[in-house]
Amino acid sequence: MYDGIVQELIDEFGRLPGVGPKSAQRITFHILQTPSFDVSRLAELLAEVRNRVRFCEICGNVSEQERCAICRDARRNQTIICVVEDAKDVAAIERTREFRGLYHVLGGSISPIANRGPDDLRITELMGRLADGTVQEVILATNPNLEGEATATYLSRLLTSMSIQVTRLASGLPVGGDLEYADEVTLGRAFEGRRSAI
Amino acid sequence: MYDGIVQELIDEFGRLPGVGPKSAQRITFHILQTPSFDVSRLAELLAEVRNRVRFCEICGNVSEQERCAICRDARRNQTIICVVEDAKDVAAIERTREFRGLYHVLGGSISPIANRGPDDLRITELMGRLADGTVQEVILATNPNLEGEATATYLSRLLTSMSIQVTRLASGLPVGGDLEYADEVTLGRAFEGRRSAI
Repeated sequence: MYDGIVQELIDEFGRLPGVGPKSAQRITFHILQTPSFDVSRLAELLAEVRNRVRFCEICGNVSEQERCAICRDARRNQTIICVVEDAKDVAAIERTREFRGLYHVLGGSISPIANRGPDDLRITELMGRLADGTVQEVILATNPNLEGEATATYLSRLLTSMSIQVTRLASGLPVGGDLEYADEVTLGRAFEGRRSAI
Repeated sequence: MYDGIVQELIDEFGRLPGVGPKSAQRITFHILQTPSFDVSRLAELLAEVRNRVRFCEICGNVSEQERCAICRDARRNQTIICVVEDAKDVAAIERTREFRGLYHVLGGSISPIANRGPDDLRITELMGRLADGTVQEVILATNPNLEGEATATYLSRLLTSMSIQVTRLASGLPVGGDLEYADEVTLGRAFEGRRSAI
């Protein structure tokens, strides 16, 4: 449709997740038509990011060093590990400032459809971290969907023989949401998990 | 939130139009976690696109040469020019395969709110192209919104003194749309522009 390189850049942007052909076109033209947009900066970052970024050898979070900033931080509570599916989830939980323990990134969830079993997740690494008895609680913070629940169930069974407390994040109504728009399952969970109001 | 370069890349993606912080994060992690994604290819394209892409000296369309592929094509109808706001619109019209004439990209629309007047558009260049009498019809294909209409009105007044036919694209119901969901203005235009059914 366009002359050579313009179409190539549109196609390349179109390969990114959540970027359809229209968005890819809009992004490309924005870059072309905005002289202030620092193309070389984005190009450099892209070229470097693969070389510089690795995954933390302990928890699996993204990091520019062998160990991530959280695992290196001795002030974090070393007796509690929050297990998440993805490094993105670490960032989401950190934003809440509610949790001061350590993380463990599984690298996905158990999904028969995607042909992903327990062996494809960083479960052996998790068990290794629990072996020396320092960790007293494991919070299973997998996604509240079918695959995340299956993964949490699998892990809680695996951990049941150890003297470690295993917990799940609470399910319930989203804060700021409208009760009338909550789906039945969420509303059901909110009832199940109801707490004393006093 | 993230270690250095990861956050920098997220921020950089977040500067692109239509890419919010969440999308920027998703894109960055996709790149990090997908070894098959060719980072260096995207980086090269980005670094090159500014150098190689210019705007056609005749019509203002994007081009890797001084004149774009359409202006270079002698088989295109040289007597008819379709005036559009943006180079993206050229691509959209080319996809219809309905138009075999030439284009003229204005580079925007008249918008008092954005402080953009006629002098900020490529109108002098358009008048220059009409001076030798080759062009017999100018199709005003600006966007069917307030600013596009204002631009079309301005241009049609400017061209009224010349012996050139000036036309507008038809407004009406979108094909495949549902009459009941059409907004009043569109439906009104569809009535205004009704044609003999035979």
